[in-house]
Order: sequence, then C-alpha cells, then structure tokens
Amino acid sequence: MNKEYEDRLQVLQSYLEQENIEVAMVTSPANVFYYTGFNCEPHERFMALVVDNRSNNISLFVPALDEESASNESSVRRIIPVSDEENPFAKLKLELGEHVGNFGLEMKAVNIFDYHNLRSAYAHASYVDVQPFINTQRMKKSGSEVESVRTAIDIIEKVLAEGIKKVEVGMSELELTAELEYLMRKFGADGPSFSTIVLSGEKAALPHGTPGNRTFKKGDFLLIDFGVIKDGYCSDITRTFIIGEASDKQKEIYNIVLQSNNAGINAIKSGIPVKTFDIEARNVIDEKGYGEYFNNRVGHGLGIEVHEEPSIHENNEQIAEPGLLFTIEPGIYIPEYGGVRIEDDVYLNDEGNVEVLTSFPKELQVIGK
Amino acid sequence: MNKEYEDRLQVLQSYLEQENIEVAMVTSPANVFYYTGFNCEPHERFMALVVDNRSNNISLFVPALDEESASNESSVRRIIPVSDEENPFAKLKLELGEHVGNFGLEMKAVNIFDYHNLRSAYAHASYVDVQPFINTQRMKKSGSEVESVRTAIDIIEKVLAEGIKKVEVGMSELELTAELEYLMRKFGADGPSFSTIVLSGEKAALPHGTPGNRTFKKGDFLLIDFGVIKDGYCSDITRTFIIGEASDKQKEIYNIVLQSNNAGINAIKSGIPVKTFDIEARNVIDEKGYGEYFNNRVGHGLGIEVHEEPSIHENNEQIAEPGLLFTIEPGIYIPEYGGVRIEDDVYLNDEGNVEVLTSFPKELQVIGK
Repeated sequence: MNKEYEDRLQVLQSYLEQENIEVAMVTSPANVFYYTGFNCEPHERFMALVVDNRSNNISLFVPALDEESASNESSVRRIIPVSDEENPFAKLKLELGEHVGNFGLEMKAVNIFDYHNLRSAYAHASYVDVQPFINTQRMKKSGSEVESVRTAIDIIEKVLAEGIKKVEVGMSELELTAELEYLMRKFGADGPSFSTIVLSGEKAALPHGTPGNRTFKKGDFLLIDFGVIKDGYCSDITRTFIIGEASDKQKEIYNIVLQSNNAGINAIKSGIPVKTFDIEARNVIDEKGYGEYFNNRVGHGLGIEVHEEPSIHENNEQIAEPGLLFTIEPGIYIPEYGGVRIEDDVYLNDEGNVEVLTSFPKELQVIGK
Repeated sequence: MNKEYEDRLQVLQSYLEQENIEVAMVTSPANVFYYTGFNCEPHERFMALVVDNRSNNISLFVPALDEESASNESSVRRIIPVSDEENPFAKLKLELGEHVGNFGLEMKAVNIFDYHNLRSAYAHASYVDVQPFINTQRMKKSGSEVESVRTAIDIIEKVLAEGIKKVEVGMSELELTAELEYLMRKFGADGPSFSTIVLSGEKAALPHGTPGNRTFKKGDFLLIDFGVIKDGYCSDITRTFIIGEASDKQKEIYNIVLQSNNAGINAIKSGIPVKTFDIEARNVIDEKGYGEYFNNRVGHGLGIEVHEEPSIHENNEQIAEPGLLFTIEPGIYIPEYGGVRIEDDVYLNDEGNVEVLTSFPKELQVIGK
C-alpha cells in the first residue's frame, strides 16, 4: 500500500511542477489520508501534509498527541509533532525556510484565521487553489480503493438483511435505527458513514428527514438510507420497503423508481457526459408523470467521503472516465403521502463498463410482523 | 424559548453597535443554532445568519432543502432559501445592498473560498473577527441550557448503569461500544456527542485510543469516556472500572485520580482564575509522584459543542464567572500498563458555587462476570 501512497504523491508533485507551485499544504483530513494513509480528525488542532516541490521534501505536521499513530500509519516518514503550546506556523518556517514564492492550498478546507497566520508568516507569497486538482485525482479510484468500498458495502448489506428481520408494527424509527447501528458495529464497521436515515409512512417523502418516534403501521413505506465507514472508505445504500401490505399505488410508484434506477445504471459507460445518467433515470419518472416529485440530482461520488466528485446531475457536462465510483439514487417523494428511493453504488471499470457494487435485491419487499 | 434567542441576538447586536460593525455573518452551525434555535449541518452548502445592524434586519440563509425545517425551528422569521443553482453571494447582495462598510465574521469558521467570494461581492468592505466575542457569550450558560445538558447527562448515566451490566471477560471493546451506542438510542439520545471511547487493559493508557478487537481479561482496567447529544446539547463523562479483581497498585492509582478529581471540583468558585482548578487537581497527582503520567489539561467547556470555552489548563488566567459549565477530568496514564480517568461535568451557578451535574458513583467498582 505504501507504493500506492507514493504514486499518489508523485501525481500531485507532477502537478505542482507543471503549475510552478513551490509548496503544497494539504490540510483536509480526507486528503491527508489519501496521500499518507494516516486517518485522523485533528479537530481544532493543526495538521498538514507539506509537499515542498523545490527540495522534494515531504513532511506531515500532526498534533503531538497523535505522533505515535502517525508514525505507525503514515507512509510519509517525516512526522513533525506540534504541541498545543507551539505555533504551527513558526514550525512551518523552520521546515520551509524564510521564503516561499507560492503556496498551493485547499481553499475550501483552510479557514481565514489560519490563512491570516500563514500570510503573516509568508507575507510575500502568493496562494493558489490545489483543491480542484486533488478532487479530480481522488475521483478516479484505484483497485484497492474499490475493494475498500466493496468491504464497506458488504457490511451494510449484511446489516440491512439482518435489520429488516427486526421490523414490526409498533416499532419506532428510532428503535430500528438503534438496531441497525448496533448491527453495523457487530459486523465490523468503524461507524456510520453519515447520520442513519429511517423514515416511515408519509415521512418517507422527506429527502432530509431524521428518524423520530413515529411507529410503524401496516401499509407504511419504510425508507432506509445508510452506510458505514470501514478502514477509511464509505458505503451508501437506500432501499424502500412496505410494511405488512402494499397498495396498488405504492407498487406503481415503487416500480417506476426501480425502472428509473435501472435506466440510470444501464446508461452508464465511459466517454459520455455524466449528466446522461441523471437524464436517463429522470426521463422514466418524467414520462410516468411523477417528474415534479423528483427534485434531487440522481447521484454523487463516493469513497473516502460519502459525498465527493463527480456530482451526477442533469447539467454536469463532465465526461465519464474509467475509475469513477458513484451512487445512482432516483426517488419519488409525494408530500403528506410518502416516498420511495432506491440507491445503488456503481463503479466504472477499466474497460469503461459499469459494475454495480451493491447486490441487495431491488424488487419490492413487503416486510414486518 | 423564542425570547431567549431574541435576547442572545440582542447581546450580539449591542456588541456590533459598540464595535461599529455593520453586518455580522454567522455561519458556524453551532452558532446559528445558538442564536436561532435552528439546528442544521449544511455540509458544503451555504448557511448564514445575517445580522444587519444598520437596519436591524436579521435573516437566515439556508439550503433550499432545509427551508421547511428552518421555518419550523428558527426564531428568526426571515428565512432566505438558497438552491444549488443559485449564487449565495448574489442573494446576499439583494438582501444587504451594494455597499457594506465592514463585516463581522467567525474567522475560524469561514473558508478562504467563501472569503474570496465575499470579498469579490464586497471589494471595499473590511472584515473583523466576531468569533471570540461569540465564544465568550456562549460560555455563560442560561438556566435552560443547563437543563439541556442535565438531560443529556441523565441519558448517558442511564446508559452507563445498564451498559456495565453487560461487561464480561472475553467481550471485545468494540462489542461493548456497540452495546453502549445502542443504549444511547434506546434512552432517547440523538446520537453520541463524540466518538465513544472504550479502552481496556494497557490500552487505557492511551489518551486518544479507539476501541478495537482487544477482549476483556480479569484484572483489566476498563476506561469508558462517552456522551450523547440531546436536543442540541452534549454530555461527556468518564468512569474507569476494574474487571474481575483489582490489584493494590490499581487501587492506589484509582484513589489518587479520585482525590485529584475531588480536589479540582472543591477548588471551583467564581472570582479566581480557572487555572486554579487545574493546579489543585494536578497537585494531588504530582505529590503522589505520578505527575509525569498526567499530561493533559484538566477540563474543557461543554454545551452545544463537546469542546468549547473555557479551557481549564494550568496557564489560563481567565477569571471564573457564574454560568461556566465544564468538565473536570484528571487521569494517570502509564504506558504499557494502563490508565485511570474520572470525569465529571460541573456548573458554576449564579451564587458562584459549583454544582456537580454528573452523579454516577465515583468509588472504585470491580465489575464483570
């Protein structure tokens, strides 16, 4: 794995070379993990991967408390601990010297406070954004990254299979959430990859709803959207069930969303704009007259973060390339009535073909005691 | 409760008036919640409470998806939804007009990317930091805030009482973590307030350790440091147990930490520097010869966030005032051997006296089957 981190850093260094950027300072925890293998949330403390492209020196600044874990996990061997009493920017000067012509920063990851400190330390430097390049680099997944996502998917699908056995009329959304998160841990997850969504009945129509005390009733929609993190990589899956007995209207809506999901997936190949996948999925829902009830993009990239590039929306002209890993998750959400979403994780392989990574059955399941 | 939000905003407005700040733009989700009651994590989307002190207009910019929840929850009535296709800074100009003399920002909460956009929209404005003032305002808790923390403490103490009944030799740290987090949900928590820490045996010596597959053995330390969020407020408690049978050395260390915890708490009153509470707790450990094994500050503020002001460390000269709510959590951590931490949450009440909010017993408990 060390070789893979070195290769990733090499790609970044070539970019810095090409753009005449002297020093890149990478501070988002996800990006530090991507380039070093060190997975750490430093909260308010200073952490930065510093790539000095003048000297080819690469160093990792970490909170002193995390020095030992960084030494164990990081493929970058030069670890510089910063204790709470120290000024990280003074330590940075010891490492980089008094003069730096320009810095590459992740402009959405550095706050103004740190930016002012950096500019005080390097008053004559200029600052450029390297985040778009890093996002693009991260978008193309390696074989080992796809395997990591597969592992996270494997866990969440086991959780889903076990979890729905516990569903019964009278159980609350929060009770089922507790069971599902317990199973995540039991099956080896490091934690949920985002706040678990369990919505029942008319609440299934809320794209941003949170589980509450509502109890399951016969005839309810039950929408479960969740995922886990395992070894730094995320899964994200949605399935919608019916409790007890499905009405004809529920079956109709469900099958339209299922057709839409399949249409989106069948449209996926390399060499065409990613918007195509959204449009193909959306057309199915539009044609059946439910277009006004599907207001979101059809999907998003997935990997170290649960939302990353590419964004699969109807205006994204970006050309699909091998290596992309993303979700396809159309839905129909009818206010006061309920909703259905079916979400899969897919990968565009080296041959430019789609591989559906999720394997949990998609046909309508009526569940619950 | 609306009155309380209005009062908080009034305090902020008086500060803006006094400092001649025309417009404050508050973007940290915790601060938006503090001033409006609207609790939302917008991720990469734009959210801002905009306080125009020239006109006394106050508006809340939210992601369009969250407009309905904002309308339901926010005491600020003017909600401005921003959809993904819109430029939030263009919408900001519609609200504030073409000219603003200066903005108050939270300098550690705004990233450079947004800062550049704001400066493009308002090229002639100056920018000042209002975050230190807001942190100071939030430090002094109201009666209702203390009640919210008490509720979160009540939940976590029930979880602890039930959870330790499940401990047995051969169980892993991760299995106990799963049980504890399940109980959090069961007792009504919205979620953990931070990543649950369950460390056993020699791992209890790691101040930043994470639960793993290590299984409990007779004679192990078992350190549990955890908390929940409930209705936007956090709890945070640590207790250390011994599994099966305690050695004399374990008892000795435990009782020193317990004395230290009590000494820290007994030192708390208003009118003296907060460093005193750290020093009094630390002295106990130093005098017993374990000073080298206690390298952290003794505590931190607690409320909407699990780490907020004040920081209770030996150099903090800040004078303690009524309204402070913080942790006292001394520990002894002996590498390769194990560790003990005992953490309580305390409140400095209107009379300037300490109230210990946590009530879980602190004497040494030997547990496990």
